[in-house]
Amino acid sequence: MKSFFHVKTVDQVLALVQEFHPLNAEDAPLAEACGRTLAESLVAREMVPEFDRSSMDGYAVRARDTFGTSEGLPGLFEVAGEVAMGTVPDLVVGPGQAARIWTGGMLPKGADAVVMLEYARGVDDHLVELCRPAAPFDHVVRRGEDVRPGQEMLPAGRRLRPQDVGLLAALGYSQVRVTRRPAAAILSTGDEVAPVDQVPGPGRVRDVNAYTLSALVEAAGGRAVRLGLIRDDREALLTHIQAGLDQADVVVLSGGSSVGVRDLTIDAFESIPGVEILVHGVAVSPGKPLIVARKGNQSLWGLPGHIVSALITGDLFLRPLLARLLGRETERRRPI
Amino acid sequence: MKSFFHVKTVDQVLALVQEFHPLNAEDAPLAEACGRTLAESLVAREMVPEFDRSSMDGYAVRARDTFGTSEGLPGLFEVAGEVAMGTVPDLVVGPGQAARIWTGGMLPKGADAVVMLEYARGVDDHLVELCRPAAPFDHVVRRGEDVRPGQEMLPAGRRLRPQDVGLLAALGYSQVRVTRRPAAAILSTGDEVAPVDQVPGPGRVRDVNAYTLSALVEAAGGRAVRLGLIRDDREALLTHIQAGLDQADVVVLSGGSSVGVRDLTIDAFESIPGVEILVHGVAVSPGKPLIVARKGNQSLWGLPGHIVSALITGDLFLRPLLARLLGRETERRRPI
Repeated sequence: MKSFFHVKTVDQVLALVQEFHPLNAEDAPLAEACGRTLAESLVAREMVPEFDRSSMDGYAVRARDTFGTSEGLPGLFEVAGEVAMGTVPDLVVGPGQAARIWTGGMLPKGADAVVMLEYARGVDDHLVELCRPAAPFDHVVRRGEDVRPGQEMLPAGRRLRPQDVGLLAALGYSQVRVTRRPAAAILSTGDEVAPVDQVPGPGRVRDVNAYTLSALVEAAGGRAVRLGLIRDDREALLTHIQAGLDQADVVVLSGGSSVGVRDLTIDAFESIPGVEILVHGVAVSPGKPLIVARKGNQSLWGLPGHIVSALITGDLFLRPLLARLLGRETERRRPI
Repeated sequence: MKSFFHVKTVDQVLALVQEFHPLNAEDAPLAEACGRTLAESLVAREMVPEFDRSSMDGYAVRARDTFGTSEGLPGLFEVAGEVAMGTVPDLVVGPGQAARIWTGGMLPKGADAVVMLEYARGVDDHLVELCRPAAPFDHVVRRGEDVRPGQEMLPAGRRLRPQDVGLLAALGYSQVRVTRRPAAAILSTGDEVAPVDQVPGPGRVRDVNAYTLSALVEAAGGRAVRLGLIRDDREALLTHIQAGLDQADVVVLSGGSSVGVRDLTIDAFESIPGVEILVHGVAVSPGKPLIVARKGNQSLWGLPGHIVSALITGDLFLRPLLARLLGRETERRRPI
């Protein structure tokens, strides 16, 4: 039986998984991008911030004018005005002058530092005492300090987290290039398997795997296409596998740990033109009777029917496959 | 200024968060239940399995008939028939008899153990040699061995993982009682803040927080309702906060780290009937200028405008709040 040549180790199966190609890219609105995978590395097109910003509420000054001031010997400054938020200040800070500024405000011309409000005492509307010296650019985020154009901000293959989405927003991306979500068609086989909403009746069990595997696919960033429950019948199997190949990147059968059903599955896979068997059995327990086949960049999986085996092989192999199709950065293996 | 009495430690804010009540329960289809939170503990209504099942392909026998058999001294058994998958076998295994059985098949009457196929040699259609002794219930999963009626299978507050969904399927739940997803209205304030799809222009920055906070809310199991970007104006603020309270469990403002804007926010919160200020300032950096208020079981949050501060306070406090509203089991604090 030639398929005995296809018994693999776990690492061999994982290496085969890496031979599939990442799927194509598509645009997603930024508001829906969290959890999606970047298709291209993200390069900044602008400076962040675009201007010297105050990082404190206080007074914008020429740093040198504050040198030598202290609690005991405050410096007296003329108030040149107030910087309105979101505007380019029209005032200039000259020698001995200070301008009222808020956090996030744009540093006015002439000023090169900010003294915090805590160290200011208003004398009257036009005069303020500052009692702490500032070094140049104290409490100022300088233009381009966070980001400069051309800088790689996020690598291709990054699964976007909330903070990454924030970075994209800061950089002005309202659309993002992400990898298409892989579709996995989920099929359950087995004459003994009954739908979940039915009492299975004597000798039968409920269709657990369709639910676990669909949830696993969705959690891994894929899209589950449920093709339902089919009997152990060659024609039904072939029709449904073909339907899976027509609409999904991955076709996952579960059921049939028994030799007879495994033979039926492998026979069905082999009878589809262009399908090549990659794995027939893997050296892991539970999970041994795994079947993997490929047709171009599509793959066909025969997972064991036993619910723990199906979950373990799904976690061990399907999750890395989906990560590969998404072009993800390499993920460490995590407990499920 | 009375609000100085509202400066809290991180643990005090987290304790306040625990005073909110979990939201009501609703039904979700099992296929959409992964990631949702169980509203009630899940108690089994049935035996799993419902019948003595074979866990191997092989022969169902009376264990005592195999005692003393070995490779050198196999026992000769009469084949009583084959157990068809998904049926109640109509055959009975008598003394000296064996019935062909597949993994998942129902143990026939008379039999109490299974000998694996690997240890069987067919002699002819009616006779088989078995060369390994079986103890009673070897390779048999007994009725109720996995689950018995009345057993608590999952606690209330469990965030459902793929394997939990599988368990629910096995127990026949096609609908699950889950906690309603908390809705969080997200508002950005600040005259210096511009929409993401615009070039912000000098002195202005893009609206990053609406994106990070929405993504954080969704990742925590909530539903983000984006109410947009508003100017630092009392009327606009009040109208939008009221719109948030009309449709969400949580209203989140970000923006305004400056004293003036914080005063505007707290003033707007206080002017809404029934709103009580809980927190005005928290002893954490960055994140200090946090404002929290409650109106019944709804809460209002004024987060700092600085993007790192907003993300950190969101992660420190909003995530536990959402977990609380979902009635989650206590989660450890995780890095974001």
